[in-house]
Amino acid sequence: MTDKTIAVLSALIRPAIEPHLPDWVEPRWFASTDELMEVVPEAEIGWFDLYDHAPMAEGVRRAEKLKWFNSIYAGLDFLPLDLLAQRGVTVTNGAGINAITIAEYTLMMMLTYAKGYRDVVRAQDRREWLLDSPGKIELAGSTALLLGYGAIGKLIETRLKAFGVEVTVVRRSGGADGTLGPDEWRRKLGEFDWVVLAVPATPETEGMIGADELAAMKDTAVLVNIARGTVVDQAALVAALQDKSIAAALLDVTDPEPLPTDHVLWTLDNAHITMHLSGRAQDKMFARSAERFLANLGRYRRGEALEPRFDPALGY
Amino acid sequence: MTDKTIAVLSALIRPAIEPHLPDWVEPRWFASTDELMEVVPEAEIGWFDLYDHAPMAEGVRRAEKLKWFNSIYAGLDFLPLDLLAQRGVTVTNGAGINAITIAEYTLMMMLTYAKGYRDVVRAQDRREWLLDSPGKIELAGSTALLLGYGAIGKLIETRLKAFGVEVTVVRRSGGADGTLGPDEWRRKLGEFDWVVLAVPATPETEGMIGADELAAMKDTAVLVNIARGTVVDQAALVAALQDKSIAAALLDVTDPEPLPTDHVLWTLDNAHITMHLSGRAQDKMFARSAERFLANLGRYRRGEALEPRFDPALGY
Repeated sequence: MTDKTIAVLSALIRPAIEPHLPDWVEPRWFASTDELMEVVPEAEIGWFDLYDHAPMAEGVRRAEKLKWFNSIYAGLDFLPLDLLAQRGVTVTNGAGINAITIAEYTLMMMLTYAKGYRDVVRAQDRREWLLDSPGKIELAGSTALLLGYGAIGKLIETRLKAFGVEVTVVRRSGGADGTLGPDEWRRKLGEFDWVVLAVPATPETEGMIGADELAAMKDTAVLVNIARGTVVDQAALVAALQDKSIAAALLDVTDPEPLPTDHVLWTLDNAHITMHLSGRAQDKMFARSAERFLANLGRYRRGEALEPRFDPALGY
Repeated sequence: MTDKTIAVLSALIRPAIEPHLPDWVEPRWFASTDELMEVVPEAEIGWFDLYDHAPMAEGVRRAEKLKWFNSIYAGLDFLPLDLLAQRGVTVTNGAGINAITIAEYTLMMMLTYAKGYRDVVRAQDRREWLLDSPGKIELAGSTALLLGYGAIGKLIETRLKAFGVEVTVVRRSGGADGTLGPDEWRRKLGEFDWVVLAVPATPETEGMIGADELAAMKDTAVLVNIARGTVVDQAALVAALQDKSIAAALLDVTDPEPLPTDHVLWTLDNAHITMHLSGRAQDKMFARSAERFLANLGRYRRGEALEPRFDPALGY
């Protein structure tokens, strides 16, 4: 028995956390899913991200004493959120932790499409000097509809504007400040060169881009999805790409992930697939997460509000 | 005989120019190099860009009556500049015409390196879902030395800053305003993550990056050349890339161009070669050039200064 607060933590983060851990915390490091399942029922505090979502969700279910759950991920739609809400667990997530690299990745995806860079890579691999650019689009002067205005959306907006892109933002509270509300953007879809999805995965955003929305886009328009595969009706998207009713889709996310080798999306030249790497294209996430977790430990002890708060009832 | 002013112009630009041509101009359209050589001796005004530089230079040599020479190119180092200077020919160039796309391309080159995007393209071609990002660099918080502060350099600076890159500018007149002068940057080379070359090709910039400069760079630093291949001592660069004394070179330009198939640069995985496509990755250059040429025709007639002026004696 201990009168300390038990925190179940992944051994992966031990080097970053342990030297700074206050003495009121009793850490239970785990190095495997089995070890997690063994210690997690005692956890008052839990930070146990797993690459495989199913055992991570199972860990949450078994953590009946959990008061504070932390994750490095921003989107937690794969967890039993109803259970977390019902148990009154405080949830902090990784919102903003990898927002910078995701924003950078988004611009890279758009630029590589605009300039036809995939074909430049292929030509380089053949040692062939191309005489003309496979892509001839300038970002400058183009128009973008940006759906989602969280940490990531805001960083994307800044960068797009620096490239001379005219950005129209959609947000829940849109309207007054030149942004569009949830009921306004659909009828304007035909005006944009880029439609960028940076929304959280919630019941409200699931399938928000379907056949109708794709049909409303210009045939030169490009869909950019860095949110979740489920935000787009993927069958409708495949049809739109096959019919060329939109020019291309730049997909950091798909449904499912990983995308099976025989999935039709791989075969479409106007589907650009980046394997949910946008958030991983940095090496500062662990350091930033550890720093944030340690700051929240202090707040937790003092009974202060933790940040950033993820509301399991709302899903973001 | 005609009392009109004879302008020798490529048939390629005829559709954009002819409808707007003032009646004091007598156009001589040419559709081949042979036709150019035939009509060029009569030219008072000449705009005859050719992809092959040698006949274009020969055209200039034969144009003994030339008073105003215009080009879509920004760099004109391949022309007989001494002859143009000696004959007192007014030269207008394409400075800034493709600056936007070159700045966009530069950011794309840096982002694709940072995120390891070449390997993502290759994985997509194999239909393989990568589980981690081949590149993990964030532009945010990195430092760049920007050599050259013309139209292109300024646009690169704006975009880099929007990504949170700390930019240090080198310019001829550097010093007072936080920029570095021509004698100051070398001793600071070891401080930068990126060294970006956006200088004009002049005797002064030829080989400005040699073995000493490469040795002074960090071994994690990346050289970005969107200027001219001759600005870099390419043999020294190959050695630095082979020794990994710098991390990579992102080369839109090489010496020579096209790079021969058996050139060693193609074999180096840390050489990223984009075949001088940066300026071609847009479709607005002809329209912008035609607009600018027509505006200059009006100025020429009124005896006003043409812009932008290229000084053949200085080479930029």
